[in-house]
Order: sequence, then structure tokens, then C-alpha cells
Amino acid sequence: MKKGLLITFEGPDGSGKTTQVQRLAQHARALGYPIVQTREPGGTAISEKIREVILDVSTPEMDDVTEALLYAAARAQHVSQVIRPALLRGDIVVCDRFVDSSIAYQGFGRGLGAGVASINAFAVQGVKPDLTFFLDIEPAAGLKRISRSGGLDRLEKETLAFHKRVYEGYQELIAQNKERYRIVDAGLDADAVAEEIQSLFDAWMAE
Amino acid sequence: MKKGLLITFEGPDGSGKTTQVQRLAQHARALGYPIVQTREPGGTAISEKIREVILDVSTPEMDDVTEALLYAAARAQHVSQVIRPALLRGDIVVCDRFVDSSIAYQGFGRGLGAGVASINAFAVQGVKPDLTFFLDIEPAAGLKRISRSGGLDRLEKETLAFHKRVYEGYQELIAQNKERYRIVDAGLDADAVAEEIQSLFDAWMAE
Repeated sequence: MKKGLLITFEGPDGSGKTTQVQRLAQHARALGYPIVQTREPGGTAISEKIREVILDVSTPEMDDVTEALLYAAARAQHVSQVIRPALLRGDIVVCDRFVDSSIAYQGFGRGLGAGVASINAFAVQGVKPDLTFFLDIEPAAGLKRISRSGGLDRLEKETLAFHKRVYEGYQELIAQNKERYRIVDAGLDADAVAEEIQSLFDAWMAE
Repeated sequence: MKKGLLITFEGPDGSGKTTQVQRLAQHARALGYPIVQTREPGGTAISEKIREVILDVSTPEMDDVTEALLYAAARAQHVSQVIRPALLRGDIVVCDRFVDSSIAYQGFGRGLGAGVASINAFAVQGVKPDLTFFLDIEPAAGLKRISRSGGLDRLEKETLAFHKRVYEGYQELIAQNKERYRIVDAGLDADAVAEEIQSLFDAWMAE
């Protein structure tokens, strides 16, 4: 039986990742798998302190490069304190966003390039997703969905052009990592998306 | 005339860098050069916040990888906000420790390897020292000097074996960067060290 697995969820803002992470974790727990459900930038005390530094409105002078390194630092702590220990115990970790989000948003979206992959390779020290669900929605449709459900946060307010670059970044990541990526149409209703993910998960676990 | 130059000071703890940075800055100012004297992790508001996260005693669970990324983040902000603007103005920046310190202490000392150079290459985005003074003192002699002058801080308390690895790391960096490194015997008294550095600086500026 497969064990010690990292399953990540990726996709544009408004693609419904948070709901679907929750739904898959429930499904897998019901099947008896030991599940650790988590999210980036990660719920460790140190990651929260780093998050506060990133989001501090009193320091708008923060450079994009500094920000990318701070996200990588928060991820390093999340990996060392939460994800790696869970994988070593043999648990299945279901994580809302991981390295590919940084590559898509900071590498492609903000134009920081390949260095973002490099700092994140250092941050995770060999931990890699075994399976990644891409919740596929056109950037404009994703943004529209968010604005219907309440305000946009800072990242979401960036121009549509930014979100299109992020989407293109994801397409490159998918092309480079075909074996682990599963593409799901996030335009369907949440129940239909959850069912599709569950059947993809069940099939993959049975492989 | 040379302008827009980055001059860094490197060396083991107790080698007298802080004094010598000050002395060279005074000397160069007296010669009429526009000097920016600074130090790592760097005196920006963001770097100070990051430094607080690193030094927070309430979170001893911090991973070495997280710490290395936080130092790189503080450096990125220091470069973007202080060093690069000064270089673009044509000033001479004299900096107490830079990337080589991270490579020596974290890469070699803590055993994090080549990834430390890689994350710092991202942090500095092409900014490189033009001239580096290595204040040469045997690790044991440096530590003895510090303990005579008051307590040891956390890094200094690490074992002598750690400091020997740091010293070996510096020897490799010197071998790889012969043109920009100037080795100064830090065992001499401070005035003699300052004179040696001044004459090396004057000769280099005249090249």
C-alpha cells in the first residue's frame, strides 16, 4: 500500500482549492487513511511570524526578492516541522498550495524567473509532491468568482495581466510534471469537482 | 576614477572586522570618497524585523534551512534598499560581512552546502563585492580574543569544530576569488592592521 505521500492542490485564485482540500481530506479519512491537512504558508509559530513580516503594511518598501525569500523561509519551516515528520510517519499530507504556487505567482507572475524554483528547492530539501491537483479555471472567471463572494485581497487585486502570467506559469509546470498533475475542471459545481477528485485519488491509490 | 564599488570585510569572529570597517571608512572619507558604511544583516526596518524573527528565543525549533533563508531575505532587502542605490549613485559601500559570511557559516559551518550560495545569488540579484578584506586569525585565537573582551553570543558559543569548518570555508572562498580577496594578518595590533588595509585600499584604487 502507498504511504508517506504528499498531495498538493494548485490553481488560480477563485478555483475553489480550500473547499476541495477539505473534501478530499474527508473522503480519504473516511477510507481509513491517516491524513494531515495543511496549507501554505503553513501553520507553525515561526511561519506565522514570517507571514506577519510579509503582510506588515508599515513596510511597503519590501522588495519582491525579499518577499520570495520570506515565503521560502516559511515553507522551509512548514516542511521541517509538519510535512516531513508526517511523511516519515507514513501519513498522507494534503496541502493547499506548495512550491508550484511560488513558481507560478512569483517566478512567472512577478517575473522573478528561475531563481524562485532554486530557492524553493533549497527550502524543501528534497520533499516533492507525489500527486498534484490543478483546479483549472480561466483567470478572469476565477477573479469574478472571488469578487462575487466578497473582497479581493492584495494579491487578487493585481491586474488581470498578472493572473494570466500566473496561469501560463501553471501550464508550463503541468507540461514539465505530467505524471503527478491531474487537471480538474473547476468551473463545475463543488460537488461535481469533489467527485472527480475523489475518483482520480482512488484510481491513483490503487495504481 | 573607480566609482560605485562594494568593499566587504570577512573573517572569523574576533578578527576585529567592526573596528577595521570603521577605520577604512574614515580613511576613505578623509581622501574625499563618498562612503556608505553598513553592516549585515543590515539596518533597514524590514531587515530588523527579520532579525527579530531569527533571534526570537521563544521559537528554538527554527530549522537551519529556515534560518539561512531568513538571513538571505534580510540581505535581499539590504541590497535593494541600501547597497544597490548607493552603488548606482557612484558611492563606495563598505560592508561588514556579506554573502561569503553566509557561505562560510551556514554552508560550511552548519553543513548546508552549496544551496546557501544559490539562495544568496538570488538575494543579491547580481550585486558582487569588488574588493574583500579577509581578516585572518586562527579560530581558536579569535574566540580567545572575544572571551577576553566580554561574553560570547550564540553563534560564538558553537564548538571550536564549527569555527574550524567556517575557517576552511573561507579558505575555499579565497581560493575561488583570488582577484578580489586581500588577506590581512589580524593578529597584529589594530593600528598596524588599519595601516595595512589602507595601503592595500590605496593601491587598489590606483590600479
